[in-house]
Amino acid sequence: MTADLIAKLTTRLGPKGVITDAPALAPYLSEWRGKFAGRTPVAALPASTEEAADTVRICIEHGAKITTQGGNTGLVGGQIPDGEVLVSLKRMNRIREIDADNDSLIAEAGCVLTAVQQAASDSDRLFPLSLASEGSATIGGLISTNAGGVHVLRYGMMRDLVLGVEAVLPDGRIYRGLKGLRKDNTGYDLKQLFIGAEGTLGIVTAASLKLFPRPRAHEVALVATPSPEAALQLLHHMKGVTGAVAAFEIMNRLSIDLVVKNVVGRRDPLPGAPYQVLIEFEGMQAETLRETVAGALQQALETGEAQNVLIAENASQARDFWRIREDISAGHRPEGAQVNHDVSVPVSQTPAFLAQANAAMEARCPGARIVAFGHMGDGNFHYTAMQPLGMDASAFPGAALTQTVNEIATALGGSISAEHGIGVARKADLVRFKDAESIQLMRTLKRALDPMNVMNPRALIATEV
Amino acid sequence: MTADLIAKLTTRLGPKGVITDAPALAPYLSEWRGKFAGRTPVAALPASTEEAADTVRICIEHGAKITTQGGNTGLVGGQIPDGEVLVSLKRMNRIREIDADNDSLIAEAGCVLTAVQQAASDSDRLFPLSLASEGSATIGGLISTNAGGVHVLRYGMMRDLVLGVEAVLPDGRIYRGLKGLRKDNTGYDLKQLFIGAEGTLGIVTAASLKLFPRPRAHEVALVATPSPEAALQLLHHMKGVTGAVAAFEIMNRLSIDLVVKNVVGRRDPLPGAPYQVLIEFEGMQAETLRETVAGALQQALETGEAQNVLIAENASQARDFWRIREDISAGHRPEGAQVNHDVSVPVSQTPAFLAQANAAMEARCPGARIVAFGHMGDGNFHYTAMQPLGMDASAFPGAALTQTVNEIATALGGSISAEHGIGVARKADLVRFKDAESIQLMRTLKRALDPMNVMNPRALIATEV
Repeated sequence: MTADLIAKLTTRLGPKGVITDAPALAPYLSEWRGKFAGRTPVAALPASTEEAADTVRICIEHGAKITTQGGNTGLVGGQIPDGEVLVSLKRMNRIREIDADNDSLIAEAGCVLTAVQQAASDSDRLFPLSLASEGSATIGGLISTNAGGVHVLRYGMMRDLVLGVEAVLPDGRIYRGLKGLRKDNTGYDLKQLFIGAEGTLGIVTAASLKLFPRPRAHEVALVATPSPEAALQLLHHMKGVTGAVAAFEIMNRLSIDLVVKNVVGRRDPLPGAPYQVLIEFEGMQAETLRETVAGALQQALETGEAQNVLIAENASQARDFWRIREDISAGHRPEGAQVNHDVSVPVSQTPAFLAQANAAMEARCPGARIVAFGHMGDGNFHYTAMQPLGMDASAFPGAALTQTVNEIATALGGSISAEHGIGVARKADLVRFKDAESIQLMRTLKRALDPMNVMNPRALIATEV
Repeated sequence: MTADLIAKLTTRLGPKGVITDAPALAPYLSEWRGKFAGRTPVAALPASTEEAADTVRICIEHGAKITTQGGNTGLVGGQIPDGEVLVSLKRMNRIREIDADNDSLIAEAGCVLTAVQQAASDSDRLFPLSLASEGSATIGGLISTNAGGVHVLRYGMMRDLVLGVEAVLPDGRIYRGLKGLRKDNTGYDLKQLFIGAEGTLGIVTAASLKLFPRPRAHEVALVATPSPEAALQLLHHMKGVTGAVAAFEIMNRLSIDLVVKNVVGRRDPLPGAPYQVLIEFEGMQAETLRETVAGALQQALETGEAQNVLIAENASQARDFWRIREDISAGHRPEGAQVNHDVSVPVSQTPAFLAQANAAMEARCPGARIVAFGHMGDGNFHYTAMQPLGMDASAFPGAALTQTVNEIATALGGSISAEHGIGVARKADLVRFKDAESIQLMRTLKRALDPMNVMNPRALIATEV
């Protein structure tokens, strides 16, 4: 059966389109942190939409299930097969079209994010999605996981950047929805089905993406702020006065201390500040932006929202500020047993979340060390509780702390997964924390669109319940 | 049976919640242009989400279907019942919550748009949706039809302004999705199902809406431009240099002449220009915005994108400029037999659309008069072909011209309904111009979520085919 499947795939996709030997498969079966280890009889690498559709049809004929993989940068295991056929889109990596006068381009699913950013830039446009894995993450995966990143505050999530989607449906038909329209009220917005669906409703093969005018002016400021409450005031103050806030990232004291401790060459430009906020501003006119930003931050010093302010003098200093933020994960990863979270709450509830979560961690695990950082402008914290210094790692009550963090976020109207998704790692939490009607609606959709449960059958939502 | 249904509804909703006498029903059964005339045994007006859910359950028990109505401003007849129970949300008109620190508010479905705009403004925030019927149109209807309007260019369609939705499902359960989160990757984005679904998948009862910082500075310019090609260059030039374009509306010569002819008190500030473009700019700093806009428009005069430029000197003059645009419909409605269209194309294709459509109209109906205006920044034209002067109205080949306009828009990658929707008026065109996979996917969704075809059974998508 499997041999026949592999033969059929090889006939259709050619030798370059099929991988079966273990060493060549290995990179597809684990991810960079080594948290998930998968297995598959075969990886199929279609080079066109029609090949992708035929791959699905061949799998169906042979009763095989499919796990789809983009750049293999997902953090929740949704891209790692466990016996399914692995479909990798990496050979579909063309930019099919750039239409600068429509502020749009069409990219195939396997295009790496940086390639799309570059193509936009080459046409004097901006594709604003930006995140740590942008050198590996692919458009198909970014759509399927509705990726976030640092510019959501100004430009939205990946969902907001997609004009149209082309996808292979679970029965092998092709949905051709690549129209690059700003307005199209001719029925249900079908592309939404595939965005953030983690490959469970089809395989995204290409997308029409929104571009924006390229900002001519950037300013980056690092601000010392006394508290999350002050940071929240600062956020709305800066948004209202400048209209130019593109990123607003908060970092607690420990997150920065651990970057300085564990990452070679990093120093803290604002030592002692309880919280630091990194703000990126962008605009079209360099002279006026600098003046506006400096004036607004001077006001923030006067109101007490800011204790100290550094505005980057040049691009190199701006990069240095960003590096601190980008190295936070590397800073705390070596610090022993820890549980990481990717929660969101309404932006107004960010101070309450930090206060409640910090207190609860201390109550349940005295001395627990907290790294709290993230996209405060979107209400999204990457919140990590680490073992107290000197505790035996095995004594660290990680699962109980995660339950508590999720409960606090949920009680504040928040989400247990702001941008990383559910995959296989968070499935139990999804059912625990999401309301029953939503779970049931999700199962209804999955059953309607993928009645044979062919697509990423173990990810996101289990229909066999 | 009907008497029993009415009795049950009256018991549950009270006398204020049920209308059965003809004079009181009349305003719900026709719309302002008089194009649709409906009939219903009863209008149900629930005053709460629970009452709305019970209304649906009572209807199901009695085998009754439902047509939902908001402010009754729809242009395609989707809100007018033909024997179904009419469910009007007008009594659910509370603003439930304003959370300025989250840039959000929660409004019930029956809230009129201007009330939401005002509530936002009272909290020093902006709710940017703006359209001609804003004094009557309600949030539920605006969501169900994914309303557009004049600020889509900067803020997106209604879909882009919705953080969460509460809805009664076709089986009477309540989907409670009002979380006001910017990021929530816990599965399928269920709210998308109800946005633009024209009431066919449930009754929207409330929504969490996005607010924005209130712009401190506005400029409105009226620009004479020689051609659509020049207008397109002007659009990208203004977007790129100012970063402040909030609306970009094009009007052809005849559209303005007919406003001057048929609307009392209007005059043309730029007589003779082949096309006029109304541009609204907004920003946070009045001094710099005025200077930026004036400089950019001066450049446009030098490049030839603009032949003449008027920047409004004050709010009153800005309103006068906008009135010309807003009165275009009133200007050409008295001009005899005509067919109106609401098409979109990629923004880059707007000159091609106008050239092809104008030539085709002249070929098929020599002397046909063309009013072309609309949201050029979104690729959306309201395109009207009118009978030649002196032609007998009955000889006007309206249906054939509509077919041609739709074919041209579709061939350019466009849509036959950019913002008005499908309703009952455009159902035949939907099936004719939308691809088969999309139609089939839409039917799959409708059958999965509304297997008994209870919700707006005649609108948008027919499942009984």
